[in-house]
Amino acid sequence: MSRLTRFSVSIDQALLERFDDQMAREGCPTRSKAVADLIRDSFVRHEWKAGREVAAAIVMVYDHHKHDLTHRLTHIQHDHHKIILSSQHIHLDHDNCLEIVVVRGRPSAVEGLANQLKATKGVKYCSVAAASTGANI
Amino acid sequence: MSRLTRFSVSIDQALLERFDDQMAREGCPTRSKAVADLIRDSFVRHEWKAGREVAAAIVMVYDHHKHDLTHRLTHIQHDHHKIILSSQHIHLDHDNCLEIVVVRGRPSAVEGLANQLKATKGVKYCSVAAASTGANI
Amino acid sequence: MSRLTRFSVSIDQALLERFDDQMAREGCPTRSKAVADLIRDSFVRHEWKAGREVAAAIVMVYDHHKHDLTHRLTHIQHDHHKIILSSQHIHLDHDNCLEIVVVRGRPSAVEGLANQLKATKGVKYCSVAAASTGANI
Amino acid sequence: MSRLTRFSVSIDQALLERFDDQMAREGCPTRSKAVADLIRDSFVRHEWKAGREVAAAIVMVYDHHKHDLTHRLTHIQHDHHKIILSSQHIHLDHDNCLEIVVVRGRPSAVEGLANQLKATKGVKYCSVAAASTGANI
Repeated sequence: MSRLTRFSVSIDQALLERFDDQMAREGCPTRSKAVADLIRDSFVRHEWKAGREVAAAIVMVYDHHKHDLTHRLTHIQHDHHKIILSSQHIHLDHDNCLEIVVVRGRPSAVEGLANQLKATKGVKYCSVAAASTGANI
Repeated sequence: MSRLTRFSVSIDQALLERFDDQMAREGCPTRSKAVADLIRDSFVRHEWKAGREVAAAIVMVYDHHKHDLTHRLTHIQHDHHKIILSSQHIHLDHDNCLEIVVVRGRPSAVEGLANQLKATKGVKYCSVAAASTGANI
Repeated sequence: MSRLTRFSVSIDQALLERFDDQMAREGCPTRSKAVADLIRDSFVRHEWKAGREVAAAIVMVYDHHKHDLTHRLTHIQHDHHKIILSSQHIHLDHDNCLEIVVVRGRPSAVEGLANQLKATKGVKYCSVAAASTGANI
Repeated sequence: MSRLTRFSVSIDQALLERFDDQMAREGCPTRSKAVADLIRDSFVRHEWKAGREVAAAIVMVYDHHKHDLTHRLTHIQHDHHKIILSSQHIHLDHDNCLEIVVVRGRPSAVEGLANQLKATKGVKYCSVAAASTGANI
């Protein structure tokens, strides 16, 4: 389904040697994969800056003992069901939960939801992990 | 289980007014929550720098059509079962999958696993979302 | 010129103890300064996201042996004299120069200039260091 | 002084087209330059993680009216003269100064100095802009 093409890169020899070292250290199998990875990473950064549709994981840590917290977080998530794809819950210890909410939408919508979750009493940490829908990378 | 205490902050009045504006914009209910959130965020950054035990989500986008890819990713994950807590899979479209692997361990172990996943042919994007075990924040 | 005011924060005791530890480690003299620093940092992040007027340092590394490079970089900078406040040049070694261009303007204008400098042949590295005009923090 | 070499990259055609679009948008003259830039950026991130010798700009905003502040900042800088290459001062407005201190050393030494400057009363903002000595990129 995808068509491969080829282009050639003219580069300082010492730079290329260090690039090969870095690939070996990270276990990357080919220069083509390593270059394509760097290109795709730059696309993901641009999708977020340009306000394109993105995928993301909202990562939260909270204390489930706080009165009614699970209920309130569920309520907020339902209000945003159009951008939420799924969520995953981990019991970190007796008190702490880790919840990962996977979303798809504009960066501003993703950040709006993350702000609302973070603003909920009992939520100790909430951040957005940038990813991509994969469609344009 | 947690004991509340109180301290007072002496601050420039204009700065406090802008802080209240920011809280209103982000829906944060109290100054105490807003200040504690900033403090906890700084702790999470420090846990990662200092190499403490952390929790994290490894976020990957890949094309599941690539030969044997799902199998190879599963194999790598089993090799790291000691730090992997769970994983979650989303079908983004006909080709692209989003997979979120939740891990707990030292930052170096988390990044080692992420490098190995990213180095696998067919993986288009892989990044680490920093979180915390919640135990020390 | 600035008026001080005071507010009180209700916080988990263990969290406050770890905050005091962090302050001691970083040499911060008072809790008020530490809290105000976190608040101002969050303002600077917001100024950049919201497209407010900011200050910034564009940090470049380049090889001055490249034909005509210094001349071309100077030319680009003159085209943007309205947002450039000053620049500073360091001779890193026989080949490499470090140049820091201090700018003041909208984030989009700052990034446009940084892109243009980075796109110039011979420039090996160019990134934008976010700061603030200080007026609203 | 530097020797050029050449390698070829096999890549998805749609990805390459989008890469060309991005290069055009950012004004990058050749694919070779664009690829080398991405490689060098990844090296700079690695130099910082691995604790190698780096160059950096410490960017500070402060209110020079604070009693004795300029004197104290100068004093701290002299204590670190071995890693400080130069500094640059901008008068942002009646109250606020922007100072950029260019340093060269291990990341831990750079961050230690930045912490000390940030901890000084009257300093409103202080952050570290990562760069490179250029020797290995």
